Amino acid sequence: MANDKKMVEAITSMDTDFAQWYTDICKKADLIDYSSVKGCMIIRPYGYAIWENIQAILDRRFKELGHENVYMPMFIPESLLNKEKDHVEGFAPEVAWVTHGGSERLTEKLCVRPTSETLFCEHYANIIKSYRDLPKLYNQWCSVVRWEKTTRPFLRSREFLWQEGHTMHETAKEAREETVQMLNVYADFHENDLAIPVVKGAKTPSDKFAGAEDTYAIEALMHDGKALQAATSHYFGDGFAKAFDITYATKENTLAHPYQTSWGCTTRMIGGIIMTHGDDNGLVLPPAVAPIQVVIIPVAAHKEGVMEAANALREKLSAHKIRVKLDDSDNSPGWKYAEYEMKGVPVRVEIGPRDIEANQCVLVMRHNREKLFVSLDGIEQTVAETLVKVRDGMYAKALENRDRRTYVCRTIDEIKESVAKGDGFVKAMWCGSEECEDEVKAQTGIGSRCIPFGDESVSDVCVCCQKPAKKLVYWAKAY
Amino acid sequence: MANDKKMVEAITSMDTDFAQWYTDICKKADLIDYSSVKGCMIIRPYGYAIWENIQAILDRRFKELGHENVYMPMFIPESLLNKEKDHVEGFAPEVAWVTHGGSERLTEKLCVRPTSETLFCEHYANIIKSYRDLPKLYNQWCSVVRWEKTTRPFLRSREFLWQEGHTMHETAKEAREETVQMLNVYADFHENDLAIPVVKGAKTPSDKFAGAEDTYAIEALMHDGKALQAATSHYFGDGFAKAFDITYATKENTLAHPYQTSWGCTTRMIGGIIMTHGDDNGLVLPPAVAPIQVVIIPVAAHKEGVMEAANALREKLSAHKIRVKLDDSDNSPGWKYAEYEMKGVPVRVEIGPRDIEANQCVLVMRHNREKLFVSLDGIEQTVAETLVKVRDGMYAKALENRDRRTYVCRTIDEIKESVAKGDGFVKAMWCGSEECEDEVKAQTGIGSRCIPFGDESVSDVCVCCQKPAKKLVYWAKAY
Repeated sequence: MANDKKMVEAITSMDTDFAQWYTDICKKADLIDYSSVKGCMIIRPYGYAIWENIQAILDRRFKELGHENVYMPMFIPESLLNKEKDHVEGFAPEVAWVTHGGSERLTEKLCVRPTSETLFCEHYANIIKSYRDLPKLYNQWCSVVRWEKTTRPFLRSREFLWQEGHTMHETAKEAREETVQMLNVYADFHENDLAIPVVKGAKTPSDKFAGAEDTYAIEALMHDGKALQAATSHYFGDGFAKAFDITYATKENTLAHPYQTSWGCTTRMIGGIIMTHGDDNGLVLPPAVAPIQVVIIPVAAHKEGVMEAANALREKLSAHKIRVKLDDSDNSPGWKYAEYEMKGVPVRVEIGPRDIEANQCVLVMRHNREKLFVSLDGIEQTVAETLVKVRDGMYAKALENRDRRTYVCRTIDEIKESVAKGDGFVKAMWCGSEECEDEVKAQTGIGSRCIPFGDESVSDVCVCCQKPAKKLVYWAKAY
Repeated sequence: MANDKKMVEAITSMDTDFAQWYTDICKKADLIDYSSVKGCMIIRPYGYAIWENIQAILDRRFKELGHENVYMPMFIPESLLNKEKDHVEGFAPEVAWVTHGGSERLTEKLCVRPTSETLFCEHYANIIKSYRDLPKLYNQWCSVVRWEKTTRPFLRSREFLWQEGHTMHETAKEAREETVQMLNVYADFHENDLAIPVVKGAKTPSDKFAGAEDTYAIEALMHDGKALQAATSHYFGDGFAKAFDITYATKENTLAHPYQTSWGCTTRMIGGIIMTHGDDNGLVLPPAVAPIQVVIIPVAAHKEGVMEAANALREKLSAHKIRVKLDDSDNSPGWKYAEYEMKGVPVRVEIGPRDIEANQCVLVMRHNREKLFVSLDGIEQTVAETLVKVRDGMYAKALENRDRRTYVCRTIDEIKESVAKGDGFVKAMWCGSEECEDEVKAQTGIGSRCIPFGDESVSDVCVCCQKPAKKLVYWAKAY
């Protein structure tokens, strides 16, 4: 049987080959499969259920903040993509082109959307007439396509799932506030729900989104010391509004261009979960998005009363809105332990005849494998509290890993030394010139990532040119 | 202001120009907009919210029946599409082809999925090994593309949103049961939630899905007497399984091919809602999927106590899980009545100073404009009951319309007479030959449609050739 075989095949250890370890988890935790469509992935039910949980949480937050969902066409005519100069330069080299419909050649080729600023702008030009129509706070859940050369499940694939928010505002101030507000939504979601600590900040100008005035991002550090850009939020000013001739009548009855933002996050976050929390036994899922939060495994299930107690437990937890599964299959408890560890289920409950006699059960937390013997009285409270404890433990562990791999450097030589010790975040000052950015990258192999909010400083001169510098930058190798 | 203008522009009357009336509603109820992407539509927030409600209900039902959601790539390589002969013949003429990725010509062109049987089959060949892996009950929510020549919002567009279930079973019997079970889910959803009466039945062989052994559908009759195929469910036998070499080890340890189904419904259902329930004042939405179920309109809002009472009402209804909106804008009550009638909000609540004095409010049902004066005591119960009454009233009205336009015919001349009276369902017997199907169509202009479940009969000879016939067919002109 396929499943029995899987148990004995251990996955590659993280230290032996991190990339292979990652792919092993994607496959063996049944998150993805490959197909004959190169560079794309099949998201299997267990992987897709994680995405559905992510969507449910974020969608609710977006709506609480007044955003509405829409659906735009998946195609963009070439002439529409060309309307904003920087934007087309950024995206045209990596789009998929539809040239034929049925047996006919199209008069104008269409790209499959790599992002939908152009479509939203065309629509906004139609529907925004007056200040009364602002703000427009739209969001879309869809798939987009970017023709990447090298691909990896979740992290970089030719097609991926995402949401893209596109908003229009009366003032630059309001649009800037929206940009930062949405970055904060992403950051809170990562920290509280995904238990992933993130750095919030601005991208350097060379690293901005094509067509944006400012790009903000949250950056997380993976197990291997590489950074992952987990979500981005862009401020566009009125550049697109001008290119697309979007105007509205102000309160004073003059014509003005509105100010714009966009912000997005993708299935890449699932890659972030794997590489932040996973271990050599497989996936470790944060409770908020785990398809199964608690798995109940009956021990000596054939003994009198065991299945009854396991079923009663399942019903109690389920009534308490905990996503619970009782595995009553005829596989051995040992097989089941390995299986649900591989799948990253946050809490395992073992219950056998002796437990029942003692009015207790065993909880095992996935992230640290700690065992707790707990009373069956008020078990639903205990389990709910344990899930909170798991999230906190996962966060602390991830933070500890990030701190351990964060290096303060004041010279390029210090960066080289830290790189020799291993990958991680390098905190170093930057004068703001693109030359220094390029020079650091050329000499050390790490690129600039993110200028954190706040006024933290580790020196007063640039790590590269040693001229005065006020900006702290997190530098890292990145996914 | 755009909105004030809209109020005075009445929509085209249904009797004057049904097609224009339909398009007017799509636009003026803010369901859709057009873009420079020909043949595709923008689904605006109000339209998309209807789709989200449809998704929520159906997704829950699918999952209750054990189905799991997945996500397949949006592209299908030409060679994969070609694997099942009938299937490719049916779809190849109407797909969009991607020929270039970035600046490079692809070595094999990819079509944008028109449906995903081929992708699911390729995946199933990888993951189905043993009878223990069966059944596989997968579903996918996504958008698909079919390069239609003439398009209309919701009814026929080059891209549309849908769900596609794809399942694999050990036995033909089990797969056939699944096919019918899912047709029943669609039928129940239409009748109970959308208040649309449907005929459940089989398509004639000439009208089957490309590659299917049997296709079942639900058919609804629109206001204008044309039929709408609202959802379909297909039984494939093991044809695709053979073409894709999907085999599994049986309990007896022999190799066998599994049996397959697929079933789908689309944003077309929103078109069905418009054309079943709409009237000359605009959209009429069934409460189960209405984004706003109840709109509260304060009358003489400036008078003391009115806004307080309206707010209290909103909170009561909202706490009772009713989707309620209080319109406290400075538009006139008359403008608001017209606006929410256009948007099809099932129940309007009017509340003014005299109502408050009398401890009452006014409920107006959208579908029949009936006014009810009701006590503010227990108002949440009264409103909830009214929403049920609205659904029942809408269903009865739609059923009455269908019955009035259903004709029993025993000869082609009788069909011609009924067609002369107006479009509708023609119930007539059919011998089963494709020649008679074609002949009826050629002579009367109505195509063959649907063989209802059950053994209803209106004669014992074919309406065309007058030879013995056992099958009753619903014939109609169709969308």
